Amino acid sequence: MPNAFYAQSGGVTAVINATAAGVIETARQYPDAIGTVFAGRNGVLGALEEALYDTRQLSDHEIQALRRSPGAAFGSCRYRLADGPDGERELQRLLDVFAAHDIRYVLYNGGGDSADTCLKIARLAQVRGLPLQAIHLPKTIDNDLPLTDCSPGFGSAAKYVATSVMEVGRDVDAMRRTATRVFVLEVLGRHAGWTAAAAALAASSRDDPPHLLLLPERPLCPERLIEQVHSCEQTYGFCVLVVSEGVRDLDGHLLSASQTQDAFGHPQLGGAGQQIATRIRQRLRLKTHVAVADYLMRSAAHHVSATDQAQAYAVGEAGIRAALAGASNIMISLERLSDQPYAWRTGEAPLSQIANREKRLPDHYISDDGWHITTACRRYLQPLIVGESPPPYANGLPCYVKLRLQRAPCRLAPWPPR
Amino acid sequence: MPNAFYAQSGGVTAVINATAAGVIETARQYPDAIGTVFAGRNGVLGALEEALYDTRQLSDHEIQALRRSPGAAFGSCRYRLADGPDGERELQRLLDVFAAHDIRYVLYNGGGDSADTCLKIARLAQVRGLPLQAIHLPKTIDNDLPLTDCSPGFGSAAKYVATSVMEVGRDVDAMRRTATRVFVLEVLGRHAGWTAAAAALAASSRDDPPHLLLLPERPLCPERLIEQVHSCEQTYGFCVLVVSEGVRDLDGHLLSASQTQDAFGHPQLGGAGQQIATRIRQRLRLKTHVAVADYLMRSAAHHVSATDQAQAYAVGEAGIRAALAGASNIMISLERLSDQPYAWRTGEAPLSQIANREKRLPDHYISDDGWHITTACRRYLQPLIVGESPPPYANGLPCYVKLRLQRAPCRLAPWPPR
Repeated sequence: MPNAFYAQSGGVTAVINATAAGVIETARQYPDAIGTVFAGRNGVLGALEEALYDTRQLSDHEIQALRRSPGAAFGSCRYRLADGPDGERELQRLLDVFAAHDIRYVLYNGGGDSADTCLKIARLAQVRGLPLQAIHLPKTIDNDLPLTDCSPGFGSAAKYVATSVMEVGRDVDAMRRTATRVFVLEVLGRHAGWTAAAAALAASSRDDPPHLLLLPERPLCPERLIEQVHSCEQTYGFCVLVVSEGVRDLDGHLLSASQTQDAFGHPQLGGAGQQIATRIRQRLRLKTHVAVADYLMRSAAHHVSATDQAQAYAVGEAGIRAALAGASNIMISLERLSDQPYAWRTGEAPLSQIANREKRLPDHYISDDGWHITTACRRYLQPLIVGESPPPYANGLPCYVKLRLQRAPCRLAPWPPR
Repeated sequence: MPNAFYAQSGGVTAVINATAAGVIETARQYPDAIGTVFAGRNGVLGALEEALYDTRQLSDHEIQALRRSPGAAFGSCRYRLADGPDGERELQRLLDVFAAHDIRYVLYNGGGDSADTCLKIARLAQVRGLPLQAIHLPKTIDNDLPLTDCSPGFGSAAKYVATSVMEVGRDVDAMRRTATRVFVLEVLGRHAGWTAAAAALAASSRDDPPHLLLLPERPLCPERLIEQVHSCEQTYGFCVLVVSEGVRDLDGHLLSASQTQDAFGHPQLGGAGQQIATRIRQRLRLKTHVAVADYLMRSAAHHVSATDQAQAYAVGEAGIRAALAGASNIMISLERLSDQPYAWRTGEAPLSQIANREKRLPDHYISDDGWHITTACRRYLQPLIVGESPPPYANGLPCYVKLRLQRAPCRLAPWPPR
């Protein structure tokens, strides 16, 4: 009986474990077609190292609780398969591990980088004529994957940001007379401004916070920024800005001071919000506060979008069904059938058109002045944050599951080879 | 018929409007004893400027919604009455405004600074034999008011911080293999470490995040910090720190870089978390991320502690009842009757012993090594975060009320006098 492999890659989301639950619960519905779902420890590293968790050991109750728990229950990774001969050895090792454990279905849950890994596996299996299918399950709070209407994880991050801005806007409005006049919220978003744009959902009218969005799609002119903040403060008595961590200056340089790099060689960002605040303080002499949402906004499972959680689950479910139908070299996508009432379904998109491409905010989603979103953008974003799905609580805190994970016995020599 | 004056002062909390609702709803129960509750626009400034909102114009439905809405519905302020002759003129103006509007009951809702304002009003009224009673209603997320078991606003901030740390701890744990190893959450807390201490509620055992608390009560030795982070990273593979904005070095200087001052001359803090992260990166070469909760943690009405919300309401209710019973020159306090099961009631404390005093974490609440809280502290904190009281939602976002405020007509010359 063929088995399945599921793994989690890249930055976590508040709902990535809902996809895991969708995979495992759906696989359990086909006991005659799928033996077990092995979960990789730390993504594809788990396959390379033959560190496989046997999910048969997990109770139905644990899987149900998994659906509402943050983090990545099996561990995630930022790891891209090497290029050249090293990469070929890695790919061969993956095939060996999959073969050793009778794995036919590979479901890799991540963003653009993991789509690339998945593509390589699918192609090699195809070339060699192996009974191995690779399917990518999308996940990213950045919402920058192409060929899907949205990415699981984004809706919850968007809800978090919009709610926070709505709340903090009232705070600053109440205090502006004698205290803080300018508030800056820095949000995650490396290359695309989707999460910053979502903050605008907090505003019922143009007068409501957030007053200014600083998007990576629009290079920042410092003079224009100061003018805008000044004008806003004069008009409303305060100004709330939402700053994407990936915002760049007119020369294309990241505003963030940090120039260190992460494991993929991406610049490690942070500090754009503080930089903006410092400029405003220096030029306008206004009391300015900064919050940096950082990982809080991608792990806030206490405040997920029920729509997002349902989509994350559906993507896992659809992954198993597509695998059983013989699909490979695809990503499960989300297709929008209508805006209002919002209707969606899962679909399939060819992996070759996904890996290493980023979907940024299109021009017609950004207002002409560059500081706001358009009605079209709002229409797109609005349904993605709808619905609440709070976790159970005990003693005032969410009850999140800690899985009792058991490794499957190894059948191969250790990796890397000595 | 005597009227009442209610106003909001200092930094807002997620539940300060619940106190407002408690005051207004309770006053409405005594139509034969209290004419109207006037709410000051921006705290005591509203009384000085005769900017009084007539809360009779607000519907019962609006007041009910107020109970669950963040910010300060009538505007808050950071304003301390002047010393010397200017202060005497201000106090006389307050008495004039109160007399002009038949105000007998003054309920001022704030922290230590507003307690001082309240004390001055109460004393002068007493000296002059005026029919004017002043009662302080406590509020501060910092939990640093003396003579009350806790302060309304703290429980919700504590719940926010503990939940966030629980969630982000799972995030970092999942990613530590190839990405972030050290995570720093900076929390509000000027002089007292209560909100940082509350983060420890996220941990079921010593092994769980948060691994290290940096409290203002314990001067920070940079070498010991680096040792601790290193040891934690070696033991658990990652390290989550919660840093109070008010943490100081061995010389007593604030770690935060910012040396600007707020309206009271208090140093305006910010940046302690980033400073800690920079030191860790430089010394240990570990990928480190920083989140700064800032105002998000004091305005998150979507995630209040139901206990805190109930206490905030009760303080408003008790304020009106104490006023009707003839009390003045007091603060409504919260008294703990038992830890488990948790039982509490409101009480009264003399204002003269409250103004300008700060209740820091006592020594027996801090572990000997200085990085953790004790069992006694946990026993104190635990009940304060219990219970959920989510707001209603529409379109994925909380429904918070915007009051339709109407000014009462002025009866005096404008302030300040020309």
